[in-house]
Amino acid sequence: MTESVPQQRKKILVVSAHPEPRSLNAALADFAVAHLRSAGHEVRVSDLYAMKWKATVDADDFPGHAPGGRLDVLAGQERATREGRLTADVLAEQEKVRWSDAVILQFPMWWFSVPAILKGWIDRVFTNGFAYGPSVPPPYTEGALGGRRALLSATIGARRSAFSDRGIHGDIADVLHPLQHGLFWFTGMAPLAPFAVYGTVALPEREFAAVTGAYGHRLDGLFTDDPVPYRTLDGGDYDHHMRLLPGAAAPGTTGLDLHLRPRGRQRT
Amino acid sequence: MTESVPQQRKKILVVSAHPEPRSLNAALADFAVAHLRSAGHEVRVSDLYAMKWKATVDADDFPGHAPGGRLDVLAGQERATREGRLTADVLAEQEKVRWSDAVILQFPMWWFSVPAILKGWIDRVFTNGFAYGPSVPPPYTEGALGGRRALLSATIGARRSAFSDRGIHGDIADVLHPLQHGLFWFTGMAPLAPFAVYGTVALPEREFAAVTGAYGHRLDGLFTDDPVPYRTLDGGDYDHHMRLLPGAAAPGTTGLDLHLRPRGRQRT
Repeated sequence: MTESVPQQRKKILVVSAHPEPRSLNAALADFAVAHLRSAGHEVRVSDLYAMKWKATVDADDFPGHAPGGRLDVLAGQERATREGRLTADVLAEQEKVRWSDAVILQFPMWWFSVPAILKGWIDRVFTNGFAYGPSVPPPYTEGALGGRRALLSATIGARRSAFSDRGIHGDIADVLHPLQHGLFWFTGMAPLAPFAVYGTVALPEREFAAVTGAYGHRLDGLFTDDPVPYRTLDGGDYDHHMRLLPGAAAPGTTGLDLHLRPRGRQRT
Repeated sequence: MTESVPQQRKKILVVSAHPEPRSLNAALADFAVAHLRSAGHEVRVSDLYAMKWKATVDADDFPGHAPGGRLDVLAGQERATREGRLTADVLAEQEKVRWSDAVILQFPMWWFSVPAILKGWIDRVFTNGFAYGPSVPPPYTEGALGGRRALLSATIGARRSAFSDRGIHGDIADVLHPLQHGLFWFTGMAPLAPFAVYGTVALPEREFAAVTGAYGHRLDGLFTDDPVPYRTLDGGDYDHHMRLLPGAAAPGTTGLDLHLRPRGRQRT
C-alpha cells in the first residue's frame, strides 16, 4: 500500500477586484478559494468592491497628520507604519499579506493594468516601512515580503495572439512587468507566470470548464512551479548604479528580458 | 525688420494627481500651465485631488443600470456613452479631452505606474465608445482620439540609472509602455518620450530651476518634437492575428522594441 505524500497546508490571500459578483472574475475568485481549500489550504479573501475599498491615497490615510501640514506621502507612510498609526483598513490588509504564504490578485485587465480599486489597494497597503524602505531588507532580494509566492490571474478582453511575443499589445510578460517585477519581485515575493484568460468579451459559457481546469492546474503548482527567474539585486549581476553589468546577459538580449537569469524567459 | 513666426495657438489639458498642493508635482503642473499660457496656448486643468475625483468604476457610473441587473462594464460603458447617459463628471472630462490638442498627465510614479486616482480617471473617462470600440476607427491607427499629442510628466523617487536601458527597474520606456502604447497610442494619440524627474525623494530645492528649465524645453516642443515612432496596426507590419510580421523588425530586435519603427528607439 502506498502512502500519499502529505499535503503541506499553506495560507493564501485572494484579492479580487470586479464590481459584479456574477462576473467571470468573481467566478474565478470563487473557484480558486474552493479549489485551494479542497486541497487543504487556508484561504482568506479581500473582495475589494464588496469591502468598498478606498482607492485613493490622501491625508485621511494619516490620522496623525497635522491639518494644514504638508503631506509627504512617502515619509508619511513610513512614519505611520513605524508608529502604528495607519488606518484600520490598511492594517487589516497588511496583516493578511503578512499572514499569507501566497498572494493571488484576480482582476479584469483595464487599460493594460489593474483596475483603479486594485491599484489603490497596492498604493495604500504596500507602505514604506511595510513593503520596502530603510527598516527592511533591500528590494529585489529577500525584501520585506520574501518567502511568499505571488500570482496574477487576469481576464483580458483581447485575443491571446495580440499579447504573444510579437503581439501588438506587447508580450503579456512585458505588459505586466510593473506588477510582476515592480510590485512582487521588488518586495521579495516570487511571482509565477501570470494566469490569463483571453477573449473574455465573448467567452462562451461552455468554455468555463476548460478555463477552470487550466486555472486549477496552475493553482496546484502554486508552491511547486518555478517562479519567474528574475535576477536578485545582490546576486552580483548589477553595478552600484543598479545597472546590469556588461556580460551578465547572453549576447543579443535586450529590453526587460535583461532582468531574467539566462534562458529563464518563458515566452507565451 | 524680421517678423516673428506667428505662434500657433493650441489647446492643452493638464491632468494632475497629487494630494499635496505644495508638492513638486503641483509645482510642475503650475509651471506647465503658466509656461504654456505665456506661449499663447489655451490650457485647462483637471486637478484630480482638488476635484475629489471618484477613482472606482462601479454601478453608480451607469445611471441607467437596473438595480440588481448584471453589470458588464465594457457593454455598460458602450451603451451609456452612446445614449449620453454617462455621469456628469465623466462627461466633463471627455469634453476636455475632445477639446484638447494635447494631454499632459502629471503624476508621482507609485509602484511603477500612476496613482490609483489617475488610473481611475483613465478607467472612467476613456470609455468604450469614446476612446475605442466599434463606433470609432480601430486602435493603433488614427483611433478615436487621433490628432492629439500626449505627454507623461512623472516624478520618480528612484535614481535615473535604475531606469536606464540596463537599469534594474527596467527601461523607463518599457515600464511606461502600458500608458504610452496601451493608453495613448491605442486611442490614436501621439505620445512624446516621457518627461521624468528622478531622485525626488531628496531633490534639493536649488535644483528646481534646472528641472523647470528642462521641462520648459520639452513643453516648447510639445507640438514639434517627434513622437515615439510606434507602428500603426494598418501600416502593413502586423498580420491578421495582430502579430508583427517576420522581417518587419531589424534582426536581433526583441521585446517591446519590436513595436517601434526601425531605428526609432530613443534610449535613455
